[in-house]
Amino acid sequence: MSVLVVGSVAFDDIASPSGSVKNILGGAATYFALAASYFTDVRVVGVVGGDFGPDQEKVFHQHGIDIRGIERAKGQTFRWGGTYADNLNEAKTDYTDLNVFETFHPQIPSEYEDTDFLFLANIQPTLQANVRRKMKGVRLTGCDTMNYWINRTPKELAETLRLVDLLLINDTEAKMLAGVTNLPRAAQKVLAMGPQALVIKHGEYGATIFFREGAFGIGHHPFRAPALPIEEVKDPTGAGDSFAGGFMGYLASQEELNREVLKRALFYGGVMGSFAVEQFGTERLQSLSREEIDARFQIFRELTHLE
Amino acid sequence: MSVLVVGSVAFDDIASPSGSVKNILGGAATYFALAASYFTDVRVVGVVGGDFGPDQEKVFHQHGIDIRGIERAKGQTFRWGGTYADNLNEAKTDYTDLNVFETFHPQIPSEYEDTDFLFLANIQPTLQANVRRKMKGVRLTGCDTMNYWINRTPKELAETLRLVDLLLINDTEAKMLAGVTNLPRAAQKVLAMGPQALVIKHGEYGATIFFREGAFGIGHHPFRAPALPIEEVKDPTGAGDSFAGGFMGYLASQEELNREVLKRALFYGGVMGSFAVEQFGTERLQSLSREEIDARFQIFRELTHLE
Repeated sequence: MSVLVVGSVAFDDIASPSGSVKNILGGAATYFALAASYFTDVRVVGVVGGDFGPDQEKVFHQHGIDIRGIERAKGQTFRWGGTYADNLNEAKTDYTDLNVFETFHPQIPSEYEDTDFLFLANIQPTLQANVRRKMKGVRLTGCDTMNYWINRTPKELAETLRLVDLLLINDTEAKMLAGVTNLPRAAQKVLAMGPQALVIKHGEYGATIFFREGAFGIGHHPFRAPALPIEEVKDPTGAGDSFAGGFMGYLASQEELNREVLKRALFYGGVMGSFAVEQFGTERLQSLSREEIDARFQIFRELTHLE
Repeated sequence: MSVLVVGSVAFDDIASPSGSVKNILGGAATYFALAASYFTDVRVVGVVGGDFGPDQEKVFHQHGIDIRGIERAKGQTFRWGGTYADNLNEAKTDYTDLNVFETFHPQIPSEYEDTDFLFLANIQPTLQANVRRKMKGVRLTGCDTMNYWINRTPKELAETLRLVDLLLINDTEAKMLAGVTNLPRAAQKVLAMGPQALVIKHGEYGATIFFREGAFGIGHHPFRAPALPIEEVKDPTGAGDSFAGGFMGYLASQEELNREVLKRALFYGGVMGSFAVEQFGTERLQSLSREEIDARFQIFRELTHLE
């Protein structure tokens, strides 16, 4: 089956204690698409400027990613610069030049109308809702958001949350969205806003999926996947989007959506996130094989598996 | 087999968003002993004052805990008052009255000399080292410490770490002890200081055990156990000591120390910590049954188990 991601394509300048890179291909949709491409057919809707050329196209094409939905606009592509300090948990944004992304209005090519799985990366909630409404045939919609939208556009975000099946956010975002500090309580409040399931990402501690009672016909006990202790995190950029790509990509590769499949998807999300941070930008995601991915999946499994 | 804990017995005043209690039985050795008592024979070395009477003795005796090693000194028992704010991660200490604990010099009754497992709760490192040296016959020694000793008595602590098999501390303490912020690197540095294995507790995210190469003859891959998402943490006091009690108690109940046993011990640690925080003080730990403990162990297992 196929998965469509709607989100940013960007050029990034990134510095961390492990070094620095300039003008590399980034953006949420890019990380998501590369991670998902190891599992299923991937389609992208985004916008780029005249600085996006054959070198960038090649990255997508080499992974069989359909980029007919990437609009070419006049001007420059979205550009972001960030610096990570020692703890690597949060980037200091050096600059954000939205450029062509500022007036992005996602257009869905007619060839994409038969898409099975939809992922709404972190963009303005009303744009997310509009895309969701256009894609009437999708089986499952996943969604990301961030503190900026939680604080600035709560009404619009609430509307979007009523339209999606799965929300993938981190601890801080979940607590902020719910207005409570206890994690399982925050999860219950967020689930009451609409989604069937909520994936809360805990960074180096893994992720937990919480379900609404009866969601997907599989009950409501939460499930937790670990993250791998990694000795050198070179660049955390895109870890969350890579997680989402592994998670949604694996779901799209499966015939049935049952509890075991969702559990494995959570593990594959962690696996793809763990690869992403090993090199700067999308470098590691570009060079993987499915064998390497499955070998790491086994390491993740061993990490918490009791006989 | 038997486990001996050396540490504080105290009276606590505790306030949290869920309520408050005054003058309740607490202390690291108390939490540890109660948690371990569901698995194995437990012995305690500590010190109390004249305010420790039959009501307190009964709590230990009802769980078959041997308190012949609790010294009765002139004066008052150690008293601590703490308040937890909304996030519950850290207590604000309202007061600490060391009282008889200030001059505590652990004496090991001759009846305790055949003890198999030793746990050195969080006390001054030189006292820990002295106890370890006296207990020549123990099979395995576990140890706790805290920021105060890491900062104030690094030399004494280094000496203690050379004498113990297992260290159980939290993320902040591990990073501070190692002087590095990356968790697996911090673990490697701490292991180089002496212990065969290091358990790092991540609070609501579970715990990871790291091994020295060849430790206990079981290789060196880390293992991670989850924590249960708990909707109402009433009182986090003693969670770490209850974790240690479940962990060491389970180890002491097993014939052999292999990888699978250590993995299960890590899960049982989390289980006992999760019970401890459900009620104020040791209330929940006093009223458990082994069936309830094993039922929760299964919930912990299901939480991360892939078929």
